[in-house]
Amino acid sequence: MESSNGCSRKAAKDVSLRELREKLAEFARVRGWEQYHSPRNLLLALVGEVGELSEIFQWKGEVERGLPNWSPGDKEHLGEELSDVLLYLVQLADVCGLDLGQAALTKIVKNAQKYPVNPKPSPNYN
Amino acid sequence: MESSNGCSRKAAKDVSLRELREKLAEFARVRGWEQYHSPRNLLLALVGEVGELSEIFQWKGEVERGLPNWSPGDKEHLGEELSDVLLYLVQLADVCGLDLGQAALTKIVKNAQKYPVNPKPSPNYN
Amino acid sequence: MESSNGCSRKAAKDVSLRELREKLAEFARVRGWEQYHSPRNLLLALVGEVGELSEIFQWKGEVERGLPNWSPGDKEHLGEELSDVLLYLVQLADVCGLDLGQAALTKIVKNAQKYPVNPKPSPNYN
Amino acid sequence: MESSNGCSRKAAKDVSLRELREKLAEFARVRGWEQYHSPRNLLLALVGEVGELSEIFQWKGEVERGLPNWSPGDKEHLGEELSDVLLYLVQLADVCGLDLGQAALTKIVKNAQKYPVNPKPSPNYN
Repeated sequence: MESSNGCSRKAAKDVSLRELREKLAEFARVRGWEQYHSPRNLLLALVGEVGELSEIFQWKGEVERGLPNWSPGDKEHLGEELSDVLLYLVQLADVCGLDLGQAALTKIVKNAQKYPVNPKPSPNYN
Repeated sequence: MESSNGCSRKAAKDVSLRELREKLAEFARVRGWEQYHSPRNLLLALVGEVGELSEIFQWKGEVERGLPNWSPGDKEHLGEELSDVLLYLVQLADVCGLDLGQAALTKIVKNAQKYPVNPKPSPNYN
Repeated sequence: MESSNGCSRKAAKDVSLRELREKLAEFARVRGWEQYHSPRNLLLALVGEVGELSEIFQWKGEVERGLPNWSPGDKEHLGEELSDVLLYLVQLADVCGLDLGQAALTKIVKNAQKYPVNPKPSPNYN
Repeated sequence: MESSNGCSRKAAKDVSLRELREKLAEFARVRGWEQYHSPRNLLLALVGEVGELSEIFQWKGEVERGLPNWSPGDKEHLGEELSDVLLYLVQLADVCGLDLGQAALTKIVKNAQKYPVNPKPSPNYN
Protein backbone atom coordinates (compact mmCIF):
# COMPACT_ATOMS: atom_id res chain seq x y z
CA MET A 1 0.00 0.00 0.00
CA GLU A 2 1.49 3.30 -1.07
CA SER A 3 0.21 6.78 -0.36
CA SER A 4 0.58 9.35 -3.09
CA ASN A 5 3.64 10.81 -1.45
CA GLY A 6 5.49 7.56 -1.77
CA CYS A 7 5.71 6.55 1.89
CA SER A 8 4.92 2.95 2.56
CA ARG A 9 2.57 2.40 5.47
CA LYS A 10 1.97 -0.58 7.62
CA ALA A 11 -1.24 -2.36 6.77
CA ALA A 12 -3.98 -0.61 8.69
CA LYS A 13 -7.67 -1.23 9.05
CA ASP A 14 -9.68 0.32 6.23
CA VAL A 15 -12.13 2.75 7.83
CA SER A 16 -15.45 3.44 6.17
CA LEU A 17 -17.64 6.51 6.31
CA ARG A 18 -20.55 4.37 7.47
CA GLU A 19 -18.53 3.08 10.40
CA LEU A 20 -17.63 6.62 11.44
CA ARG A 21 -21.23 7.77 11.02
CA GLU A 22 -22.55 4.96 13.21
CA LYS A 23 -19.93 5.46 15.90
CA LEU A 24 -20.58 9.20 16.02
CA ALA A 25 -24.37 8.83 16.07
CA GLU A 26 -24.05 6.44 19.01
CA PHE A 27 -21.51 8.73 20.70
CA ALA A 28 -23.96 11.64 20.58
CA ARG A 29 -26.99 9.53 21.50
CA VAL A 30 -25.60 8.06 24.71
CA ARG A 31 -24.44 11.51 25.85
CA GLY A 32 -27.76 13.20 25.09
CA TRP A 33 -26.03 15.52 22.64
CA GLU A 34 -28.38 15.04 19.67
CA GLN A 35 -30.32 18.10 20.78
CA TYR A 36 -27.26 20.25 20.02
CA HIS A 37 -26.56 18.67 16.64
CA SER A 38 -28.62 20.85 14.35
CA PRO A 39 -27.20 21.35 10.85
CA ARG A 40 -26.02 24.92 11.42
CA ASN A 41 -24.53 24.13 14.84
CA LEU A 42 -22.49 21.32 13.30
CA LEU A 43 -21.52 23.51 10.35
CA LEU A 44 -20.16 26.21 12.65
CA ALA A 45 -18.33 23.57 14.69
CA LEU A 46 -16.80 22.36 11.40
CA VAL A 47 -15.70 25.91 10.57
CA GLY A 48 -14.13 26.12 14.03
CA GLU A 49 -12.11 22.98 13.36
CA VAL A 50 -11.02 24.21 9.93
CA GLY A 51 -9.72 27.24 11.79
CA GLU A 52 -7.69 25.05 14.12
CA LEU A 53 -6.35 23.13 11.13
CA SER A 54 -5.32 26.40 9.48
CA GLU A 55 -3.54 27.56 12.62
CA ILE A 56 -1.17 24.62 12.29
CA PHE A 57 -0.07 25.83 8.87
CA GLN A 58 -0.38 29.58 9.32
CA TRP A 59 3.20 30.73 9.99
CA LYS A 60 5.04 28.02 8.12
CA GLY A 61 5.33 29.42 4.61
CA GLU A 62 5.18 26.70 1.97
CA VAL A 63 5.11 23.17 3.38
CA GLU A 64 6.45 20.20 1.42
CA ARG A 65 4.50 17.01 0.76
CA GLY A 66 5.22 14.38 3.40
CA LEU A 67 5.99 17.05 6.03
CA PRO A 68 9.76 16.51 6.23
CA ASN A 69 11.17 18.01 9.45
CA TRP A 70 7.84 17.91 11.28
CA SER A 71 8.09 16.30 14.70
CA PRO A 72 5.97 13.23 15.52
CA GLY A 73 4.05 15.44 17.96
CA ASP A 74 3.24 17.99 15.28
CA LYS A 75 2.09 15.24 12.93
CA GLU A 76 -0.12 13.78 15.66
CA HIS A 77 -1.63 17.20 16.30
CA LEU A 78 -2.30 17.59 12.58
CA GLY A 79 -3.96 14.17 12.48
CA GLU A 80 -6.26 15.24 15.30
CA GLU A 81 -7.32 18.45 13.60
CA LEU A 82 -7.89 16.71 10.26
CA SER A 83 -9.99 14.18 12.18
CA ASP A 84 -12.04 16.84 13.92
CA VAL A 85 -12.97 18.32 10.56
CA LEU A 86 -13.89 14.87 9.24
CA LEU A 87 -15.95 13.94 12.29
CA TYR A 88 -18.10 17.08 12.10
CA LEU A 89 -18.45 16.66 8.34
CA VAL A 90 -19.72 13.10 8.77
CA GLN A 91 -22.17 14.23 11.44
CA LEU A 92 -23.37 17.20 9.37
CA ALA A 93 -24.10 14.92 6.42
CA ASP A 94 -25.85 12.49 8.76
CA VAL A 95 -28.23 15.00 10.34
CA CYS A 96 -29.00 16.27 6.84
CA GLY A 97 -29.96 12.72 5.83
CA LEU A 98 -27.31 12.51 3.13
CA ASP A 99 -25.08 9.53 2.37
CA LEU A 100 -21.65 11.17 2.32
CA GLY A 101 -19.80 8.20 0.84
CA GLN A 102 -22.18 7.85 -2.09
CA ALA A 103 -22.19 11.61 -2.64
CA ALA A 104 -18.38 11.59 -2.71
CA LEU A 105 -18.21 8.78 -5.29
CA THR A 106 -20.78 10.56 -7.42
CA LYS A 107 -18.78 13.78 -7.23
CA ILE A 108 -15.59 12.05 -8.34
CA VAL A 109 -17.42 10.73 -11.41
CA LYS A 110 -18.79 14.19 -12.13
CA ASN A 111 -15.32 15.72 -11.76
CA ALA A 112 -13.89 13.13 -14.15
CA GLN A 113 -16.43 14.19 -16.75
CA LYS A 114 -15.69 17.86 -16.17
CA TYR A 115 -11.91 17.37 -16.40
CA PRO A 116 -11.21 14.63 -18.96
CA VAL A 117 -7.69 13.23 -18.90
CA ASN A 118 -5.63 15.47 -21.10
CA PRO A 119 -1.92 16.14 -21.41
CA LYS A 120 -2.46 19.90 -21.43
CA PRO A 121 -2.40 21.84 -18.17
CA SER A 122 -5.81 22.25 -16.66
CA PRO A 123 -7.31 25.70 -17.17
CA ASN A 124 -8.55 25.42 -13.60
CA TYR A 125 -5.21 26.05 -11.98
CA ASN A 126 -4.37 29.69 -12.34
CA MET B 1 -29.72 0.74 8.19
CA GLU B 2 -30.86 3.87 9.91
CA SER B 3 -29.24 7.26 9.92
CA SER B 4 -29.39 9.26 13.12
CA ASN B 5 -32.28 11.30 11.83
CA GLY B 6 -34.42 8.23 11.51
CA CYS B 7 -34.75 8.02 7.74
CA SER B 8 -34.29 4.59 6.30
CA ARG B 9 -32.01 4.44 3.33
CA LYS B 10 -31.69 1.93 0.60
CA ALA B 11 -28.69 -0.34 1.06
CA ALA B 12 -25.74 1.46 -0.47
CA LYS B 13 -22.15 0.53 -0.96
CA ASP B 14 -20.04 1.28 2.09
CA VAL B 15 -17.34 3.71 1.00
CA SER B 16 -13.98 3.71 2.73
CA LEU B 17 -11.49 6.51 3.19
CA ARG B 18 -8.79 4.35 1.61
CA GLU B 19 -10.93 3.89 -1.51
CA LEU B 20 -11.43 7.65 -1.79
CA ARG B 21 -7.73 8.31 -1.20
CA GLU B 22 -6.69 5.88 -3.91
CA LYS B 23 -9.22 7.17 -6.44
CA LEU B 24 -8.18 10.77 -5.80
CA ALA B 25 -4.45 10.04 -5.98
CA GLU B 26 -4.98 8.31 -9.33
CA PHE B 27 -7.25 11.16 -10.49
CA ALA B 28 -4.51 13.72 -9.81
CA ARG B 29 -1.72 11.52 -11.17
CA VAL B 30 -3.22 10.88 -14.59
CA ARG B 31 -3.99 14.58 -15.01
CA GLY B 32 -0.53 15.74 -13.95
CA TRP B 33 -2.03 17.69 -11.08
CA GLU B 34 0.23 16.38 -8.29
CA GLN B 35 2.48 19.40 -8.78
CA TYR B 36 -0.36 21.65 -7.57
CA HIS B 37 -1.26 19.51 -4.57
CA SER B 38 0.99 20.96 -1.91
CA PRO B 39 -0.41 20.88 1.63
CA ARG B 40 -1.22 24.59 1.82
CA ASN B 41 -2.72 24.67 -1.67
CA LEU B 42 -5.06 21.84 -0.71
CA LEU B 43 -5.84 23.49 2.62
CA LEU B 44 -6.88 26.72 0.93
CA ALA B 45 -8.96 24.74 -1.57
CA LEU B 46 -10.64 23.06 1.41
CA VAL B 47 -11.38 26.47 2.95
CA GLY B 48 -12.88 27.53 -0.37
CA GLU B 49 -15.22 24.55 -0.33
CA VAL B 50 -16.21 25.17 3.29
CA GLY B 51 -17.18 28.63 2.09
CA GLU B 52 -19.40 27.18 -0.61
CA LEU B 53 -20.96 24.85 1.95
CA SER B 54 -21.66 27.80 4.24
CA GLU B 55 -23.28 29.75 1.41
CA ILE B 56 -25.94 27.06 1.15
CA PHE B 57 -26.94 27.67 4.78
CA GLN B 58 -26.25 31.38 5.08
CA TRP B 59 -29.67 33.01 4.69
CA LYS B 60 -31.80 30.18 5.99
CA GLY B 61 -31.98 30.87 9.73
CA GLU B 62 -32.13 27.68 11.76
CA VAL B 63 -32.43 24.50 9.67
CA GLU B 64 -34.09 21.36 10.99
CA ARG B 65 -32.49 17.94 10.99
CA GLY B 66 -33.44 15.98 7.88
CA LEU B 67 -33.90 19.17 5.85
CA PRO B 68 -37.70 19.09 5.59
CA ASN B 69 -38.91 21.32 2.75
CA TRP B 70 -35.60 21.27 0.90
CA SER B 71 -36.00 20.41 -2.77
CA PRO B 72 -34.19 17.38 -4.22
CA GLY B 73 -32.04 19.80 -6.19
CA ASP B 74 -30.99 21.67 -3.06
CA LYS B 75 -30.14 18.41 -1.33
CA GLU B 76 -28.08 17.29 -4.31
CA HIS B 77 -26.22 20.59 -4.26
CA LEU B 78 -25.55 20.16 -0.55
CA GLY B 79 -24.25 16.62 -1.17
CA GLU B 80 -21.82 18.00 -3.74
CA GLU B 81 -20.45 20.68 -1.44
CA LEU B 82 -20.09 18.25 1.48
CA SER B 83 -18.25 15.95 -0.94
CA ASP B 84 -15.92 18.69 -2.12
CA VAL B 85 -14.88 19.35 1.47
CA LEU B 86 -14.33 15.63 2.05
CA LEU B 87 -12.34 15.12 -1.14
CA TYR B 88 -9.89 17.92 -0.34
CA LEU B 89 -9.63 16.72 3.25
CA VAL B 90 -8.73 13.20 2.08
CA GLN B 91 -6.13 14.59 -0.32
CA LEU B 92 -4.66 16.92 2.29
CA ALA B 93 -4.20 14.03 4.72
CA ASP B 94 -2.67 11.96 1.92
CA VAL B 95 -0.04 14.47 0.85
CA CYS B 96 0.82 14.92 4.53
CA GLY B 97 1.42 11.18 4.78
CA LEU B 98 -1.29 10.70 7.42
CA ASP B 99 -3.83 7.87 7.59
CA LEU B 100 -7.06 9.81 8.00
CA GLY B 101 -9.22 6.81 8.88
CA GLN B 102 -6.92 5.64 11.65
CA ALA B 103 -6.55 9.19 12.93
CA ALA B 104 -10.34 9.55 13.06
CA LEU B 105 -10.82 6.31 15.00
CA THR B 106 -8.09 7.36 17.43
CA LYS B 107 -9.75 10.74 17.90
CA ILE B 108 -13.11 9.16 18.67
CA VAL B 109 -11.48 7.06 21.41
CA LYS B 110 -9.76 10.15 22.79
CA ASN B 111 -13.04 12.08 22.76
CA ALA B 112 -14.77 9.22 24.59
CA GLN B 113 -12.15 9.45 27.35
CA LYS B 114 -12.51 13.23 27.50
CA TYR B 115 -16.30 13.11 27.66
CA PRO B 116 -17.33 10.02 29.63
CA VAL B 117 -20.97 9.04 29.34
CA ASN B 118 -22.76 11.07 31.98
CA PRO B 119 -26.34 12.12 32.47
CA LYS B 120 -25.33 15.70 33.22
CA PRO B 121 -25.17 18.24 30.41
CA SER B 122 -21.72 18.54 28.91
CA PRO B 123 -19.82 21.64 30.01
CA ASN B 124 -18.70 21.90 26.42
CA TYR B 125 -22.00 23.18 25.13
CA ASN B 126 -22.41 26.74 26.23
CA MET C 1 -25.55 57.77 17.05
CA GLU C 2 -27.62 54.66 16.61
CA SER C 3 -26.50 51.24 15.57
CA SER C 4 -28.82 49.24 13.36
CA ASN C 5 -30.12 47.26 16.31
CA GLY C 6 -31.42 50.41 17.93
CA CYS C 7 -29.10 50.60 20.93
CA SER C 8 -27.71 54.03 21.62
CA ARG C 9 -23.99 54.11 22.27
CA LYS C 10 -21.83 56.59 24.01
CA ALA C 11 -19.89 58.76 21.61
CA ALA C 12 -16.72 56.88 20.77
CA LYS C 13 -13.72 57.74 18.67
CA ASP C 14 -14.25 57.00 15.02
CA VAL C 15 -11.59 54.49 13.99
CA SER C 16 -10.32 54.44 10.43
CA LEU C 17 -8.89 51.60 8.42
CA ARG C 18 -5.79 53.68 7.71
CA GLU C 19 -5.20 54.16 11.42
CA LEU C 20 -5.45 50.42 12.01
CA ARG C 21 -3.17 49.68 9.07
CA GLU C 22 -0.50 52.07 10.30
CA LYS C 23 -0.65 50.81 13.87
CA LEU C 24 -0.40 47.19 12.74
CA ALA C 25 2.45 47.84 10.31
CA GLU C 26 4.39 49.54 13.11
CA PHE C 27 3.48 46.73 15.53
CA ALA C 28 4.97 44.12 13.18
CA ARG C 29 7.97 46.24 12.23
CA VAL C 30 9.24 46.87 15.75
CA ARG C 31 8.89 43.18 16.62
CA GLY C 32 10.66 41.96 13.49
CA TRP C 33 7.54 40.09 12.42
CA GLU C 34 7.31 41.37 8.84
CA GLN C 35 9.22 38.31 7.67
CA TYR C 36 6.27 36.13 8.74
CA HIS C 37 3.62 38.31 7.17
CA SER C 38 3.41 36.85 3.69
CA PRO C 39 -0.04 36.99 2.07
CA ARG C 40 -0.83 33.29 2.52
CA ASN C 41 0.46 33.21 6.10
CA LEU C 42 -1.84 36.11 6.98
CA LEU C 43 -4.73 34.52 5.09
CA LEU C 44 -4.40 31.28 7.06
CA ALA C 45 -4.15 33.28 10.30
CA LEU C 46 -7.39 35.02 9.26
CA VAL C 47 -9.05 31.65 8.67
CA GLY C 48 -7.89 30.58 12.12
CA GLU C 49 -9.57 33.62 13.67
CA VAL C 50 -12.78 33.05 11.71
CA GLY C 51 -12.74 29.59 13.27
CA GLU C 52 -12.48 31.06 16.77
CA LEU C 53 -15.32 33.46 15.95
CA SER C 54 -17.46 30.54 14.76
CA GLU C 55 -16.74 28.60 17.95
CA ILE C 56 -18.46 31.33 19.95
CA PHE C 57 -21.67 30.78 17.99
CA GLN C 58 -21.45 27.05 17.33
CA TRP C 59 -23.70 25.50 19.97
CA LYS C 60 -26.11 28.37 20.44
CA GLY C 61 -28.78 27.73 17.86
CA GLU C 62 -30.22 30.94 16.45
CA VAL C 63 -28.95 34.09 18.15
CA GLU C 64 -31.00 37.28 18.31
CA ARG C 65 -29.76 40.67 17.19
CA GLY C 66 -28.29 42.62 20.08
CA LEU C 67 -27.30 39.41 21.91
CA PRO C 68 -29.89 39.58 24.70
CA ASN C 69 -28.88 37.32 27.62
CA TRP C 70 -25.20 37.31 26.70
CA SER C 71 -22.95 38.14 29.65
CA PRO C 72 -20.60 41.13 29.45
CA GLY C 73 -17.72 38.65 29.43
CA ASP C 74 -19.14 36.79 26.43
CA LYS C 75 -19.65 40.06 24.56
CA GLU C 76 -16.08 41.10 25.33
CA HIS C 77 -14.80 37.76 24.03
CA LEU C 78 -16.85 38.21 20.87
CA GLY C 79 -15.42 41.70 20.42
CA GLU C 80 -11.92 40.26 20.63
CA GLU C 81 -12.55 37.58 18.04
CA LEU C 82 -14.24 40.02 15.64
CA SER C 83 -11.18 42.27 16.13
CA ASP C 84 -8.73 39.47 15.42
CA VAL C 85 -10.44 38.82 12.09
CA LEU C 86 -10.36 42.53 11.26
CA LEU C 87 -6.71 42.97 12.23
CA TYR C 88 -5.54 40.13 9.99
CA LEU C 89 -7.77 41.36 7.16
CA VAL C 90 -6.25 44.84 7.38
CA GLN C 91 -2.74 43.37 7.37
CA LEU C 92 -3.50 41.04 4.48
CA ALA C 93 -4.77 43.93 2.37
CA ASP C 94 -1.70 45.94 3.36
CA VAL C 95 0.89 43.37 2.35
CA CYS C 96 -1.00 42.93 -0.92
CA GLY C 97 -0.67 46.68 -1.53
CA LEU C 98 -4.43 47.23 -1.62
CA ASP C 99 -6.34 50.12 -0.02
CA LEU C 100 -9.03 48.24 1.90
CA GLY C 101 -11.13 51.30 2.72
CA GLN C 102 -11.33 52.44 -0.89
CA ALA C 103 -12.01 48.90 -2.05
CA ALA C 104 -14.86 48.62 0.46
CA LEU C 105 -16.48 51.89 -0.66
CA THR C 106 -16.18 50.81 -4.28
CA LYS C 107 -17.78 47.47 -3.47
CA ILE C 108 -20.73 49.11 -1.74
CA VAL C 109 -21.36 51.22 -4.87
CA LYS C 110 -21.12 48.10 -7.03
CA ASN C 111 -23.53 46.23 -4.75
CA ALA C 112 -25.98 49.16 -4.92
CA GLN C 113 -25.97 48.87 -8.72
CA LYS C 114 -26.41 45.11 -8.57
CA TYR C 115 -29.29 45.30 -6.09
CA PRO C 116 -31.32 48.44 -6.84
CA VAL C 117 -33.76 49.48 -4.15
CA ASN C 118 -36.89 47.52 -4.82
CA PRO C 119 -39.91 46.58 -2.73
CA LYS C 120 -39.77 42.98 -3.94
CA PRO C 121 -37.80 40.38 -2.00
CA SER C 122 -34.29 39.98 -3.29
CA PRO C 123 -33.77 36.82 -5.36
CA ASN C 124 -30.47 36.51 -3.56
CA TYR C 125 -31.92 35.29 -0.30
CA ASN C 126 -33.02 31.74 -0.74
CA MET D 1 1.61 57.81 2.70
CA GLU D 2 3.41 54.50 2.53
CA SER D 3 1.97 51.05 2.92
CA SER D 4 4.11 48.48 4.65
CA ASN D 5 5.21 46.98 1.36
CA GLY D 6 6.79 50.22 0.30
CA CYS D 7 4.47 51.22 -2.54
CA SER D 8 3.46 54.83 -2.53
CA ARG D 9 -0.22 55.45 -3.04
CA LYS D 10 -2.09 58.44 -4.19
CA ALA D 11 -3.76 60.31 -1.36
CA ALA D 12 -7.08 58.60 -0.80
CA LYS D 13 -9.97 59.32 1.49
CA ASP D 14 -9.53 57.78 4.91
CA VAL D 15 -12.45 55.42 5.45
CA SER D 16 -13.76 54.77 8.94
CA LEU D 17 -15.50 51.75 10.34
CA ARG D 18 -18.38 53.95 11.49
CA GLU D 19 -18.87 55.23 7.95
CA LEU D 20 -19.00 51.68 6.61
CA ARG D 21 -21.37 50.60 9.39
CA GLU D 22 -23.78 53.44 8.68
CA LYS D 23 -23.72 52.92 4.92
CA LEU D 24 -24.35 49.20 5.31
CA ALA D 25 -27.14 49.64 7.85
CA GLU D 26 -28.88 52.06 5.48
CA PHE D 27 -28.24 49.74 2.53
CA ALA D 28 -29.99 46.87 4.31
CA ARG D 29 -32.78 49.05 5.70
CA VAL D 30 -33.93 50.51 2.39
CA ARG D 31 -33.95 47.06 0.80
CA GLY D 32 -35.88 45.42 3.63
CA TRP D 33 -32.98 43.04 4.27
CA GLU D 34 -32.66 43.55 8.03
CA GLN D 35 -34.90 40.52 8.57
CA TYR D 36 -32.19 38.32 7.05
CA HIS D 37 -29.33 39.85 9.01
CA SER D 38 -29.30 37.70 12.11
CA PRO D 39 -25.88 37.15 13.70
CA ARG D 40 -25.48 33.56 12.50
CA ASN D 41 -26.73 34.34 8.99
CA LEU D 42 -24.13 37.10 8.70
CA LEU D 43 -21.44 34.87 10.19
CA LEU D 44 -22.09 32.15 7.60
CA ALA D 45 -22.09 34.78 4.85
CA LEU D 46 -18.71 35.93 6.19
CA VAL D 47 -17.41 32.35 6.06
CA GLY D 48 -18.63 32.14 2.47
CA GLU D 49 -16.64 35.23 1.54
CA VAL D 50 -13.52 33.96 3.32
CA GLY D 51 -13.91 30.91 1.09
CA GLU D 52 -13.97 33.08 -2.02
CA LEU D 53 -10.92 34.95 -0.76
CA SER D 54 -9.10 31.65 -0.24
CA GLU D 55 -9.99 30.47 -3.74
CA ILE D 56 -7.98 33.36 -5.15
CA PHE D 57 -4.85 32.10 -3.39
CA GLN D 58 -5.47 28.35 -3.49
CA TRP D 59 -3.34 27.13 -6.42
CA LYS D 60 -0.66 29.79 -6.34
CA GLY D 61 1.93 28.35 -3.95
CA GLU D 62 3.68 31.04 -1.95
CA VAL D 63 2.74 34.60 -2.96
CA GLU D 64 5.11 37.52 -2.46
CA ARG D 65 4.21 40.73 -0.68
CA GLY D 66 2.99 43.37 -3.12
CA LEU D 67 1.70 40.72 -5.52
CA PRO D 68 4.30 41.16 -8.27
CA ASN D 69 3.09 39.69 -11.58
CA TRP D 70 -0.58 39.85 -10.63
CA SER D 71 -2.69 41.48 -13.30
CA PRO D 72 -4.73 44.61 -12.48
CA GLY D 73 -7.84 42.49 -12.93
CA ASP D 74 -6.66 39.91 -10.40
CA LYS D 75 -5.84 42.67 -7.91
CA GLU D 76 -9.27 44.21 -8.40
CA HIS D 77 -10.90 40.83 -7.81
CA LEU D 78 -8.85 40.41 -4.63
CA GLY D 79 -9.92 43.87 -3.45
CA GLU D 80 -13.55 42.87 -3.93
CA GLU D 81 -13.23 39.67 -1.94
CA LEU D 82 -11.32 41.39 0.88
CA SER D 83 -14.11 43.98 0.90
CA ASP D 84 -16.84 41.37 1.04
CA VAL D 85 -15.25 39.89 4.15
CA LEU D 86 -14.95 43.34 5.72
CA LEU D 87 -18.52 44.34 4.90
CA TYR D 88 -20.01 41.24 6.53
CA LEU D 89 -17.69 41.63 9.51
CA VAL D 90 -18.85 45.23 10.03
CA GLN D 91 -22.49 44.16 9.77
CA LEU D 92 -21.99 41.21 12.13
CA ALA D 93 -20.46 43.48 14.77
CA ASP D 94 -23.29 45.96 14.23
CA VAL D 95 -26.15 43.51 14.73
CA CYS D 96 -24.34 42.23 17.82
CA GLY D 97 -24.30 45.77 19.18
CA LEU D 98 -20.50 45.92 19.33
CA ASP D 99 -18.29 48.85 18.34
CA LEU D 100 -15.79 47.14 16.05
CA GLY D 101 -13.37 50.07 15.84
CA GLN D 102 -13.10 50.44 19.60
CA ALA D 103 -12.80 46.67 20.02
CA ALA D 104 -9.97 46.61 17.47
CA LEU D 105 -8.03 49.40 19.20
CA THR D 106 -8.48 47.65 22.55
CA LYS D 107 -7.21 44.38 21.06
CA ILE D 108 -4.09 46.04 19.67
CA VAL D 109 -3.29 47.38 23.14
CA LYS D 110 -3.87 43.93 24.64
CA ASN D 111 -1.62 42.33 22.00
CA ALA D 112 1.11 44.87 22.73
CA GLN D 113 1.02 43.85 26.39
CA LYS D 114 1.08 40.16 25.47
CA TYR D 115 4.00 40.56 23.07
CA PRO D 116 6.34 43.23 24.41
CA VAL D 117 8.89 44.55 21.94
CA ASN D 118 11.82 42.22 22.13
CA PRO D 119 14.70 41.44 19.78
CA LYS D 120 14.24 37.70 20.21
CA PRO D 121 11.98 35.81 17.80
CA SER D 122 8.44 35.52 19.07
CA PRO D 123 7.61 32.10 20.48
CA ASN D 124 4.30 32.49 18.72
CA TYR D 125 5.66 31.77 15.26
CA ASN D 126 6.43 28.10 15.03
